[in-house]
Order: sequence, then structure tokens, then C-alpha cells
Amino acid sequence: MTAEMKFHDYFPADRIQRLTAAINRKAKPLGSLGLLEDLALQTALVLEAEPGDDLRLNPLHLIFAGDHGVAAAHPVSITGSDFTVKMVNNFIRGGAAINAFLDTAGIPFEIIDSGISRPEEILPDGISRVRNCSLGRGTRDLSKEDALTEEQLKKAEEFGKSIADNAVSRGINALLFGEMGIGNTTPASAILARVAGLPAEECAGRGTGIGDQALALKKALIRKALARVPENAAPEVILRALGGFEIAEMVYTMTHARNRGILLVIDGFIVTAAALLACRMAPEIRGQMVFATESGEPGHLRMLEMLKAEPLLRLGLRLGEGTGAALSYSLIKSAAAFFSRMAEWDSKSGRIIYRNQERD
Amino acid sequence: MTAEMKFHDYFPADRIQRLTAAINRKAKPLGSLGLLEDLALQTALVLEAEPGDDLRLNPLHLIFAGDHGVAAAHPVSITGSDFTVKMVNNFIRGGAAINAFLDTAGIPFEIIDSGISRPEEILPDGISRVRNCSLGRGTRDLSKEDALTEEQLKKAEEFGKSIADNAVSRGINALLFGEMGIGNTTPASAILARVAGLPAEECAGRGTGIGDQALALKKALIRKALARVPENAAPEVILRALGGFEIAEMVYTMTHARNRGILLVIDGFIVTAAALLACRMAPEIRGQMVFATESGEPGHLRMLEMLKAEPLLRLGLRLGEGTGAALSYSLIKSAAAFFSRMAEWDSKSGRIIYRNQERD
Repeated sequence: MTAEMKFHDYFPADRIQRLTAAINRKAKPLGSLGLLEDLALQTALVLEAEPGDDLRLNPLHLIFAGDHGVAAAHPVSITGSDFTVKMVNNFIRGGAAINAFLDTAGIPFEIIDSGISRPEEILPDGISRVRNCSLGRGTRDLSKEDALTEEQLKKAEEFGKSIADNAVSRGINALLFGEMGIGNTTPASAILARVAGLPAEECAGRGTGIGDQALALKKALIRKALARVPENAAPEVILRALGGFEIAEMVYTMTHARNRGILLVIDGFIVTAAALLACRMAPEIRGQMVFATESGEPGHLRMLEMLKAEPLLRLGLRLGEGTGAALSYSLIKSAAAFFSRMAEWDSKSGRIIYRNQERD
Repeated sequence: MTAEMKFHDYFPADRIQRLTAAINRKAKPLGSLGLLEDLALQTALVLEAEPGDDLRLNPLHLIFAGDHGVAAAHPVSITGSDFTVKMVNNFIRGGAAINAFLDTAGIPFEIIDSGISRPEEILPDGISRVRNCSLGRGTRDLSKEDALTEEQLKKAEEFGKSIADNAVSRGINALLFGEMGIGNTTPASAILARVAGLPAEECAGRGTGIGDQALALKKALIRKALARVPENAAPEVILRALGGFEIAEMVYTMTHARNRGILLVIDGFIVTAAALLACRMAPEIRGQMVFATESGEPGHLRMLEMLKAEPLLRLGLRLGEGTGAALSYSLIKSAAAFFSRMAEWDSKSGRIIYRNQERD
């Protein structure tokens, strides 16, 4: 498979030129806002803005939750699969890290039940916060058989399409991706291994903090799974073989957001695994993706390199839930604000020119 | 001179232990919030919080503006000294990058006139936004003589003390430092050179984007200045010799904030030069300093290493104005929020425990 390209490569050169010129006219030394200038450019491109337009963001954070047969059958995580629904309830009650970050940034969120193993344990008063897109009570064990059935993969695409359609109909123009699923670094590592053509050893890390024995087991299970997936398998084949439910629904939410004016804010290791597959299915989606964070999980750097992505934050996060995406949002908002509101510098007259104002 | 220490070294071990234990009880894998956990710990230490307390931030952004004799006399910047007051007026009118970022984050700001060369050009309707702490109409040329007089240095300390006192009396507990002063990478580079014992060549960069000739001139002027300052000069001697007014007032605002429950948010190259000197005058100030950004100016990395500082953002900013500090603020707020609000994980019972709530 060929490498992805930078976001620039998916937009017309004349639009890039026009917007870059506008950014360069701002009253600041050329390029002095660094990566934030790229971010402003990309946001303007995705939102189909022209120089002088106001970039108004309307964000929504989604937490896709799912369980994994491999984690139910093997001790590849520091906690059991029952913890997934506990954390879903924690999101509902507002006690998770992601709640603290979303509230601070003023971002609304929704939980997607992509297929957790104990949906009946979701708090009754929280049901309205959870969108039922369940593909089953956890995937099958990827080390033994394909994680998803053909039918489940089809349903994952339907759910993904409906999530993207719903966001569009509500005027959302920035979708932040987060996830919760005990054991989901195992399928994410396997996806990286197969897409990058790397051995399991180089793709699997300690996730939430497993010891040497669990790590060795995790690598062995990934190797078994990879033995079933041809090296040049299509992204859909990889996705069905390795899962999980939450990854599949993220992939299809991304691909169905294509060319619909939505910035896709990609979180850490798990979400980036979904992004990798989405970019293989629909390469131009890369143009809409902003990479929020460089995760503490070692395989993530590999993914970012493949996607030619420069992450906004490098804080060593490895929590998931979309915490990196939520934390990066204020940078995206700040980039949009400087694009929209900064005065311009007229190099000929030496004057500063204000929007909707007379000359200085 | 000895190297500075990490912030941990300036607080009692038992308080660190108590707060770290509280962070480790949060419902997340140990250490999974990376650098944000350090930030939460430091914020709690500086604000004198205990586990269970709410960390409520009350921020104020200060932009110290001053002009430099070296820039008035030599072409060491891409614009002339007259641009300093133009940018002050731009801050007043809300057309600068820093305005976009402060508004996005909801942070109030004040401009300090530390000594700009044309104060009479400040917009009449903006006078109320500018605090007059002027030490003169620009410093003297550091390549020829000491940038500040003894009297000016004394007044700089008085102003710094009054700025810190004023912040304390208003209940400010997070001071963000920004600056504006055409040519001020020259004194900042010279300060780095003298404090670090490095040659001018390794400390001077292109600032806002000067060419080869201007860079060579800048280095030569710094060498001339350094020839006047003994290698083991006291920080006050270095400050008086090299300036500038805005750097001196930042230094003394920092030192007079010592042990007063205020987090000091340090921006890029210029502010960090002030932080270096402040830490030499009052080493325990380091404990209150959060480093917002790794600047695109090459000497900045040197400064951060000396201060054992891990910057929150690595976006390649090189604009000043305190843009890095303002952009980093949402991370500080998010760290405070997770410390204050996240539920705890009781490893014995396997339950999640909420604040002011019954058990799950």
C-alpha cells in the first residue's frame, strides 16, 4: 500500500494559495505562529471558508464504546471487560477525565454503544446520553476467528453513515473522536501491523500498563490473528478480521463524513488505527483529519508517520476517551480565531488594517 | 552558576506525596495523563490546595512593552522601533494574535508600558488599558553602555513589586507573561549567553526573521555587550547591563510573586530570559513556573534545559506577545479540572467513587 499524503495534497492549489496569502497578510512575522498556521489553513479549507470569512466551529465529541472477545478470553488488559460499562457510566455521571476536559472546553458529547458486553448495566438515567449502535455483546476473539461477521461489518457501515448524517444535519463541523473498550489496543496494534507490514513485536505496547507476561501474550495473540489476514488484504478485510466494533464504527463515521465540511479530530492510538483504515478506504479523508496528540503508546508514532501527521500535542497521554482530541480543541478554536479576527499588515504603507474598521 | 532544579524540588516532600497519591487514585490508568499530571500536581502545590479541594484559577495576562536602544541604533530587527507602539495599539484594538487567543480562552489582559519610545502615540481611547510603568523612552544601546541606569533598575523593581502586589490584592493566582518590544531577542540572547556561559553565536537566532547580514550584526553587538559583563556577574548586574525595560519588570514581577500562591506562566524566548534571571535571584521561584511553549527561536531550548523545564506546547511559535502562554492556559485549566472533579477508583472494591456522591 502506498503512503498517505499531507492534508494539503487533497485540496485545490488555488484555494490553498488564496488562504495562505491571507494568513501571510496578518499582522505578525511570517510563519511565526508555526503549526497553528497550518491548522488555520486546514480548518479554512475543510470548512470551505474564504479569506475574510469567520470560521465558526460547532463541535461534537463522540465516545465509541465496545468490548472485545480477545479481552474477554485472555488477560491482555489491566482490568476485565466489565470495566467498559463502568467507564460508560462514569462518563454519564461526569467523573472521567474526558468530562473534565470537555466541560472546560465547552464541547458537548455523546456516547455511542458500538457493542459493549453488558449494556443492561448502563445507568437508567444515562440511557438518553447513549446512542444505541450496538453490533453485539463484544466482538469475537480475533486470535481465533474474524472479530466481526460480514453482517456486523455491514451494520457498522450503516451506523457510521447515520452518525455522520446526523452530525451534518445538526450543523456540526468538527467531530472529535474518542473511544472506550477494555483490550482495544490489541486490535489497534494488529491493524497497525497489517497496514504497515510490520511484525506484531513492533506494534504492540503496554496499553494501560500491562506487565511483561501480558505483553508477551498480547503479541502472541496478534501474531495468531495476523496469520489469518493476507498481507495485501483490503482495508475492509483487515477491519472485519481484527475489529473491534468501536473501531469499525469510527472508520465508517469518518468515511461518510467525506467532503461534507467536517473537520475530523483524531485522538490517540485507537482512533488513529481507525483513521489509518479510513484513509485506505477513502484517501481524500486525510485532508479533513487533524491529529490531536502523540500518544505514549509506542506504535502511535508509527501511525502518525504513515499518515504524514504532525500532532498538535505531545503530552504523553495514553488514556483514550478522546482526551487528546478534547485537549487539542482549544488550539483549533484559537487557530480559527486568529484566521477570522486578526488585523492585516499592509507592507506597502506600513499600516495595520482592521476588519470592518478604518485604517490605523 | 549551578543549574536550576525541577519544580518538585521546591515543595515539601509530604505535600507532594499527598497530592500525588490523590492523582493516582483517579479513575484512570496510572500516569496515563502524562505531562498533565505533573501540571495538576504543580498547580495544586502552588495554589496550596489539598486533595479534594477545587482548584479555581483566576488568570491575568500581562503584556510588558518596551523599546531597545540597540534596535533604535542598529538594524537588528525586520521592523523599526516605531512598530512597538503600533502593536500596543493593535492589542488595544483587538487585532493581534494574542487578542484572538485570550478571547478564545476568556483571559483578561493588561498592557504594561515598561518604556516604549513613543508613548504619546498610544490611542487615546486605549490609555485606560495601559498601565504606565515607564522607565524611559527605550533603553540605552547595550552594545555601547549598560542598557539601564542604576536608578532605572531600582524603579523596575518597584514597578515589578507593585504589579505583583496588585495581582495578589485582586486574587489573581495565575499570571501569564507576554511581551512586545522590537529588537528584544538581542538582549534576551545576550542574557542567555552570559547566564549559560555560552558564546553569542550559539545564543542568537533570527528572531522575527532577519537575514544573514542582520544576524551577523546582532551577534557582533551581543559580543560587544558581553565584553562589558564579567562572566560571574550577579543577575542584577547582567540585567542592568543588557536590559531591557520589559525584561527587567518581568523579572521583578516574578521575584515579588514568590510564595504568594501565584502560578507564573512563562512564554517563549524573551519571557524565559526573564525567568532565567528571576530564578538566579530567587531560586524557589522555579517552583511556581509553568513553561508554556518551546519557541522556534533556537536559544530557547537551551534556556528550557537549564531550567529543567518540560514545555506544554511544541508548536514552533516565535511571535511573543505571550501567545504561547495564552494557548497553554486551556491545558492548565484542564489539569486543574481533572484534579478537582475526577472520580476515584477504589482498587480494593473495584468501584468508582464520586465526589460528594454515593458509591457507584
